[in-house]
Amino acid sequence: MKVSIGPKPFIQPNPVLVVGSYDQNGTPNIMTVAWGGICCSVPPCVVISPAKRAHTCENIMASQAFTVNIPSTSLVKETDYVGIYSGKKENKFESLGLTPVRSQAVNAPYVAEFPLILECKVIHSVEIGLYTHQFIGEIVDTKVEEEVLGEDGLPDIRRVRPFVYDEVGRNYYQIGELIAKAFSIGKK
Amino acid sequence: MKVSIGPKPFIQPNPVLVVGSYDQNGTPNIMTVAWGGICCSVPPCVVISPAKRAHTCENIMASQAFTVNIPSTSLVKETDYVGIYSGKKENKFESLGLTPVRSQAVNAPYVAEFPLILECKVIHSVEIGLYTHQFIGEIVDTKVEEEVLGEDGLPDIRRVRPFVYDEVGRNYYQIGELIAKAFSIGKK
Repeated sequence: MKVSIGPKPFIQPNPVLVVGSYDQNGTPNIMTVAWGGICCSVPPCVVISPAKRAHTCENIMASQAFTVNIPSTSLVKETDYVGIYSGKKENKFESLGLTPVRSQAVNAPYVAEFPLILECKVIHSVEIGLYTHQFIGEIVDTKVEEEVLGEDGLPDIRRVRPFVYDEVGRNYYQIGELIAKAFSIGKK
Repeated sequence: MKVSIGPKPFIQPNPVLVVGSYDQNGTPNIMTVAWGGICCSVPPCVVISPAKRAHTCENIMASQAFTVNIPSTSLVKETDYVGIYSGKKENKFESLGLTPVRSQAVNAPYVAEFPLILECKVIHSVEIGLYTHQFIGEIVDTKVEEEVLGEDGLPDIRRVRPFVYDEVGRNYYQIGELIAKAFSIGKK
């Protein structure tokens, strides 16, 4: 038996993405978003939907570029911090002792301490509702910390150790056990 | 030290979403997508990006409505199946013995056996690249199986037991242990 609970933003779970951008003075900023994900394979693209009032949104409107930085579980405090406090009032890299690196692929900074980075240029944007601006970014390059590469030379999720966000309980969870091989377990 | 691996759709991890739609004959269809997520809080909206050639894409273009069905780990085989085979060639509800339910909120079917359902009407769509069509759906209602509700009357992620998809290894993983409270662990 199903019950109706009204319109709620309750996909379970959401990714945890830290978005890097420069403001118009060239100051690097980072902000955590859970409203985002991959949205195209050819070319690889990512979609993020920050609040319009966010410093990140204003930055990307001007620069038309951003990075997506995937945090490891060891960075959960820093990741939560940059989702709470605004870059309008402080330089969050300095507050946390994180290292901004200027992307050579797009006009945006990434975080040296994060294991997996997507460097993106905006190819489409649209307002949604009253308070949100969505950006689609084409992924121009992907940078991976050597120590999280698997034997195939690609980022190994067991080494990256990303985590997820649940909006209902407002909690972060780590990734659990392997369940099954995709495009395989369901074959006829 | 970071290495460049070129443009890749490698956010880790992605959600696993089963999208329900009707074709123009009123036949219900479901397809699994990992390219999707919440994209707005006010009003609650979801974004999905199916391949243009997918039956689901054609259906939504015509009906302007869809459901997002969140699977439990116990439904991993069915979820993988509906990501492999096309609704152009079979009725996947019948193939799997799943039960289509006509949404009373939008012109789309949902899956009775799935624990958490978002019922959506399309408010924006855009082509991305050569092969992908993105739809933004406003969530008109949310349906939850009673047995996965927490004491607060909302879907408890430990009872829903959703899972995630890793594009790099093409594997499904369950949700692991709680790491931290969001909007809390990072406070000054």
